[in-house]
Amino acid sequence: MAKKVVIIGGGAAGIDVLELLLRGQKDAGNLKITILKREKEGFFSICGLPYALQGMYEIEALDLFGPDLYRSKGIDFRTEIEVTDINLEERHLLTESKEKIAYDYLVIATGSKPFVPPIEGADLVGIHTLSSREEGRLIEKALGDEENRDFFVIGAGWIGLQAAYAFYEKGKNVTVVEKLPQLLPALLDADMASIVQKWLEGNINFVLGNGVDAIKGRSRVESVVVEGKEHPADIVLMAAGMRPNVELAAKAGLDVGASGGLATDQALRVRKGGQTLENVYALGDCIEVIDAVTGRPRLSQLASTALVQARVVANNLLGMSSSLEPCLSPAVASIAGLQIGSVGATTATAKRHGIHIKAGKALKYTKARFFPGRKAIIAKMIFRTDDYRLIGAQIISEATVAERINELTLGIKAGVTATDVVMRERCFDPALSMAEDVIVDAATNAMTD
Amino acid sequence: MAKKVVIIGGGAAGIDVLELLLRGQKDAGNLKITILKREKEGFFSICGLPYALQGMYEIEALDLFGPDLYRSKGIDFRTEIEVTDINLEERHLLTESKEKIAYDYLVIATGSKPFVPPIEGADLVGIHTLSSREEGRLIEKALGDEENRDFFVIGAGWIGLQAAYAFYEKGKNVTVVEKLPQLLPALLDADMASIVQKWLEGNINFVLGNGVDAIKGRSRVESVVVEGKEHPADIVLMAAGMRPNVELAAKAGLDVGASGGLATDQALRVRKGGQTLENVYALGDCIEVIDAVTGRPRLSQLASTALVQARVVANNLLGMSSSLEPCLSPAVASIAGLQIGSVGATTATAKRHGIHIKAGKALKYTKARFFPGRKAIIAKMIFRTDDYRLIGAQIISEATVAERINELTLGIKAGVTATDVVMRERCFDPALSMAEDVIVDAATNAMTD
Repeated sequence: MAKKVVIIGGGAAGIDVLELLLRGQKDAGNLKITILKREKEGFFSICGLPYALQGMYEIEALDLFGPDLYRSKGIDFRTEIEVTDINLEERHLLTESKEKIAYDYLVIATGSKPFVPPIEGADLVGIHTLSSREEGRLIEKALGDEENRDFFVIGAGWIGLQAAYAFYEKGKNVTVVEKLPQLLPALLDADMASIVQKWLEGNINFVLGNGVDAIKGRSRVESVVVEGKEHPADIVLMAAGMRPNVELAAKAGLDVGASGGLATDQALRVRKGGQTLENVYALGDCIEVIDAVTGRPRLSQLASTALVQARVVANNLLGMSSSLEPCLSPAVASIAGLQIGSVGATTATAKRHGIHIKAGKALKYTKARFFPGRKAIIAKMIFRTDDYRLIGAQIISEATVAERINELTLGIKAGVTATDVVMRERCFDPALSMAEDVIVDAATNAMTD
Repeated sequence: MAKKVVIIGGGAAGIDVLELLLRGQKDAGNLKITILKREKEGFFSICGLPYALQGMYEIEALDLFGPDLYRSKGIDFRTEIEVTDINLEERHLLTESKEKIAYDYLVIATGSKPFVPPIEGADLVGIHTLSSREEGRLIEKALGDEENRDFFVIGAGWIGLQAAYAFYEKGKNVTVVEKLPQLLPALLDADMASIVQKWLEGNINFVLGNGVDAIKGRSRVESVVVEGKEHPADIVLMAAGMRPNVELAAKAGLDVGASGGLATDQALRVRKGGQTLENVYALGDCIEVIDAVTGRPRLSQLASTALVQARVVANNLLGMSSSLEPCLSPAVASIAGLQIGSVGATTATAKRHGIHIKAGKALKYTKARFFPGRKAIIAKMIFRTDDYRLIGAQIISEATVAERINELTLGIKAGVTATDVVMRERCFDPALSMAEDVIVDAATNAMTD
């Protein structure tokens, strides 16, 4: 008899599992798949939203796969449905409308929600987050209103900075407030972050090292108070990080880790009281992963992490034993034409976990010095002091960053040392690279500085 | 007392050793360095010459480091000097002018010269090669002469194709003749080569699968005969490969391998009668390397190979024991805006060495499907059938090829399998990548086809 797989959540994680099961079914077959989605639409690429706000394309372009596409493939794709309870013993779900949905295998992909700091005035009109199509539309509307001049962004992570740049492109006065003293604190060391800051300064105002005290206004936002100083504000974007949606799972008694994400085993099966449940998987923004450098659990709320996890879940559901490796969470984003990439441990992460490091930095070009169109490129490489193995890297340039981060992700996994980076072959053509690459110089500097 | 190091050859290999010794000397010190160069100038970046002919910059832009720069650093930089003999026992060289130059350590970096096929008429005026600044100037002059309309290129390797495109850009009728039935036979499988051919067709004529029978003319080239058919020709470029310059070394009794390059040990010390000489190193286009996939000796005539070898030689001369790893020879070039990369074994190489393979190919994009400015990208990945380890890759696109080849070079070294390629983390941002990368699809196809 066909096994019934129910996926809760239709974001990247849930849809990735669905896609992979569809692809794999011709081999393993015999799964009856239901997906339950709170929202009305199919798959929406949230990562593309800041670029849409900037005007690169319409928000509709991000509606990638509609429910009907999946329904035509035999998937029970259900939208606007809210699961209120998981009955693990009887293997069924309860919905808001008291419907009972049975499962043989459950996949929890409930995602995350924006963290809204507990600030006075955080519920005023004109305060937004950037985590759904609908919120995207509201911000788009706010950007179109000429009365809205002063935009505040709370949080200087990827989403905050990408949104801030979109607001600037739309002619707004933009201020980013970040509690920590640098941009992108989770991804970059302070010296690398200052390069990003310089790139954006002039177009975007930064208030760093300070949290927001309060947001003021009668019904609508009128001002933002930072360190006692009141700044006029028409629109506020909360971009202070994402929190895993674990309420449903926690209510059913599933274990939540110290990071706030669901705890799983390597096969991504959830735990209850420390015991692995054989038929319940979880993945995506709502779970925690094991960090490949520190060996400690942490969150990895990236679409790319969700995809790798979806392969593990789908393989297991299709009967192929599969495990998630510890994560390096390579990440990249384009902000105002600048590509910023990071993988593995930052200096701060290493310090926090007592790992002694030697870092090396270099500035070179993406093409030969004599070649037109070359871009400056800055790389910082972080090695363990004891064996000079690579454990982290940060790269900033107008070109080639994503592919380099992928190379270095593989390098960290493969245990390459600073000497390996220097002594190994790299391809060269003056139109496409330098004979001595920036990462070679960065590794050399780490050994000699 | 200072040890005397003499380097024969001032191309990329010799200059790289010189540069690295200069950088390393503050630590190990005490080397007195002489470099002997046949040409008049300092270091000329030959890799940049086709782009100069195309008009991207002046040929002078490629004169990167002049003799005076090195002389001011205490190097005995000697130009227009021809070494005629190496006396290995007495540790000195003899020059054409009968000067005796003593050495403690000798570095042979005599490079390579264009192979000129034994064809009737190969000595006519109007026949060129592309292996020096002077030849570059002659071709530039020939391009400037409106009387020269029909340009023939013999050989469809990197240099031949890059030069052919430069001739086309300068408004010439260009025909490339290649003995083998495809372009870039040393680097690409036939199916990948056909993509390059389609890109260039219309601008460049190809006559494949046929050698040139003869070149005709009184004193100047007038026509080229291919398979009995006579084609009018004003200028002919010989680009049928490069042969190692080993005459000097062979005359001294040093071992030459079956590939035609000097045989060395892993430290790049030459051999005589099978015995390693402790104080004579060789590197660059004139030596053979061990192929990392087949374990067999072959040539690797790339500036990037020379650089890695220079690090080994310089380290050893500076007293740090250093070995050359078997080579994968990652290579990349830009031809008519198309970036073409290759690393490791092609299907033909694998077949020739009895390695059973599974290849997978995929066509995707360099950015998300909805993102403006995305470029098509085609990847072919070659895995061993027995353990599905990656042994070769070929990539073609208008962007990101060089960096991807570097990633895959590291992947082959690290022993990654098709499953690793599919299951591992990659960074994602819709402006910079696809969630599922082209190499992931190619690896998947290799496993399922």
